Amino acid sequence: MAGSALQNTRKIPVLDLQLSSFRDPQVFFHAPTQRWIMCVALSRAHQIAFFGSTNLLQWTELSRFGPSGITGVDYECPNLVEVPIDGGKTAWVLFVSINPGAPQGGSATQYFVGTFDGTRFVPESDTTEFVDFAKDFYALQFFTNVPSGNPVSIGWLNNWQYCQETPANSWRGVMSLPRRISLAPDTTQRLKLIQQPEDLAPLRGTASDATPPSRMDAGSSWETPLPAAAAHEVRISVEIDAQPAGLPPGDKGRSGRFVLNFLNSNEETLSIGFDAFTAQLWLDRGKLKGFSHPFFTNSFSAALTPDQRKITLHIVLDKCSVEVFVNNGQQTGSALLFPATPLDRLRLSATGAGATLSHFELFPLKQTVRAEEGPI
Amino acid sequence: MAGSALQNTRKIPVLDLQLSSFRDPQVFFHAPTQRWIMCVALSRAHQIAFFGSTNLLQWTELSRFGPSGITGVDYECPNLVEVPIDGGKTAWVLFVSINPGAPQGGSATQYFVGTFDGTRFVPESDTTEFVDFAKDFYALQFFTNVPSGNPVSIGWLNNWQYCQETPANSWRGVMSLPRRISLAPDTTQRLKLIQQPEDLAPLRGTASDATPPSRMDAGSSWETPLPAAAAHEVRISVEIDAQPAGLPPGDKGRSGRFVLNFLNSNEETLSIGFDAFTAQLWLDRGKLKGFSHPFFTNSFSAALTPDQRKITLHIVLDKCSVEVFVNNGQQTGSALLFPATPLDRLRLSATGAGATLSHFELFPLKQTVRAEEGPI
Repeated sequence: MAGSALQNTRKIPVLDLQLSSFRDPQVFFHAPTQRWIMCVALSRAHQIAFFGSTNLLQWTELSRFGPSGITGVDYECPNLVEVPIDGGKTAWVLFVSINPGAPQGGSATQYFVGTFDGTRFVPESDTTEFVDFAKDFYALQFFTNVPSGNPVSIGWLNNWQYCQETPANSWRGVMSLPRRISLAPDTTQRLKLIQQPEDLAPLRGTASDATPPSRMDAGSSWETPLPAAAAHEVRISVEIDAQPAGLPPGDKGRSGRFVLNFLNSNEETLSIGFDAFTAQLWLDRGKLKGFSHPFFTNSFSAALTPDQRKITLHIVLDKCSVEVFVNNGQQTGSALLFPATPLDRLRLSATGAGATLSHFELFPLKQTVRAEEGPI
Repeated sequence: MAGSALQNTRKIPVLDLQLSSFRDPQVFFHAPTQRWIMCVALSRAHQIAFFGSTNLLQWTELSRFGPSGITGVDYECPNLVEVPIDGGKTAWVLFVSINPGAPQGGSATQYFVGTFDGTRFVPESDTTEFVDFAKDFYALQFFTNVPSGNPVSIGWLNNWQYCQETPANSWRGVMSLPRRISLAPDTTQRLKLIQQPEDLAPLRGTASDATPPSRMDAGSSWETPLPAAAAHEVRISVEIDAQPAGLPPGDKGRSGRFVLNFLNSNEETLSIGFDAFTAQLWLDRGKLKGFSHPFFTNSFSAALTPDQRKITLHIVLDKCSVEVFVNNGQQTGSALLFPATPLDRLRLSATGAGATLSHFELFPLKQTVRAEEGPI
């Protein structure tokens, strides 16, 4: 439909079910059936309704999906998107946001992978997955028909539990980085979402020449000041030594952890860590002092590929947020942050087991908000 | 099968699929089909297999369930239980524990409601629910054939993410209170689990005569020392005033909250609070000082019935745990706690909006662990 122009007919609403919990339409053109498709949430019924139209004015209900997955109180913001699978083919992914009642509290976006024939979305299994392992990535939307081929997503970096109470100056709240979306099978052959930041190169300043040692012994750490910048990007690949045989359980036996801290002289620290022997990652904002709220959960975690002691992290730290892309986008964690004082140092630590670094990059990132939009 | 005796034939294993991830059998007698049923986890395949036997020695596979719900890395500890629905009838509930990879990190137990005909479990929808809104209630098991009719559950009050590193003396870890289980439809007519503590009367000492005011204005609080005891039970019903019209969003408009704190003079506090205008509850252990761990999440929350400003809490605070039963067991939250100093005061606060208390009870509870089992 490139180059098409839509005309405002003023015939609105084009669809009215006389329901108060009927909202958030997403409309796209489905080429195989040559019609427009609308996905819309029947929020309180925990269903996504699909409508079809050839003229965008008359709409016919095609099918419904749900209740499915984690319903929470309301379904919101459905998005049905055809997503490339790494190595060819595509699958359809139905994204459904819920609020409140997400397992970590408040709002979250889940997704279902399946097929769509122009009439009905059929999930490939009865499982559900969350888009983000942290708590501040909601109401996911898409840029489609992107020249590069992959759909690009953007989320609201917030949670309804505290979005109206976070510290703010002239404006409150930000969107996520745009993310390039694909699918890849996990170790159980189920298709999972892969999220990578869209090209950050235009924002990068000169790479820091700080170089951590390629080998870090258990108990050692390394530190560098962050270059002065609006935001920072860190890329790191590290492999933790195998767990020695015969260790007891508990701290002594299980603490093969690699930790990345953003910190400052105000005793604040943001901690991102990898527990190698259970293959789990944490993201802990609990030692930042700028905001406290009973719903502002301190830490989040993700289960990575079992028995995999190697990890790749791609981290974008902004003034009041962090986005963590783990193992080339297999998992992402997005969290608001409110340090009382800017975080200005980066520390790497190996605890309990040694670690070998195969890659490290640290970039300052340029500001994207224009000064006339108000102080940050 | 009351009074039956089982004989050890030494013919073990009775069932061997030659799989390393095949575990946690639950066996029960299914009267309508006059055979034994075994539920067992194919952990890494995220399936529950059902086997049947008339002699407990030869087992035939009947069906499989899954992958379904939140799979995490491993399915564990399946339990299929026939549960009474409030007001008559029953439904079958399949409980599936997962670890790691629960949405709040590490381990969690989810459940599916459906039918079981002696061969196949069929869920009534593709939704999944968690048994507990906090993070320390895992590997749920059941006492069945209980004289009172309702199955009674017991969980492991812990999480694999930190169970080997929590502070401990002679023993580490506890089980939950036994819970009487039933089902009831929620406001969307889906059957949800109802969990109530089995009779606590035998443990109760003399009720505290501390009496909070029945009316608490916005901004007011009330405090009482906890009676000296091994543990404490609090029951409270409170209704928050309606939100005044025309308030702005943010702190001023949204802070109609009722907060219950267990605290001490060491500036430690456990906070349980109700945000009336979003009908959400929090449980915050983040201001206790006895244990810090990157996976030891500070706070948890639950979405309650929308637009319901009344709440009933039934709380059992033990030396190192709290179990919160909300609105007669519609939601439960179970969390380990490690105050550096015992919590010895209870405070009630109304913030932002006034509150009317219709019920309050505070009981000391007797110790159940015998002294010879070691210091607590």
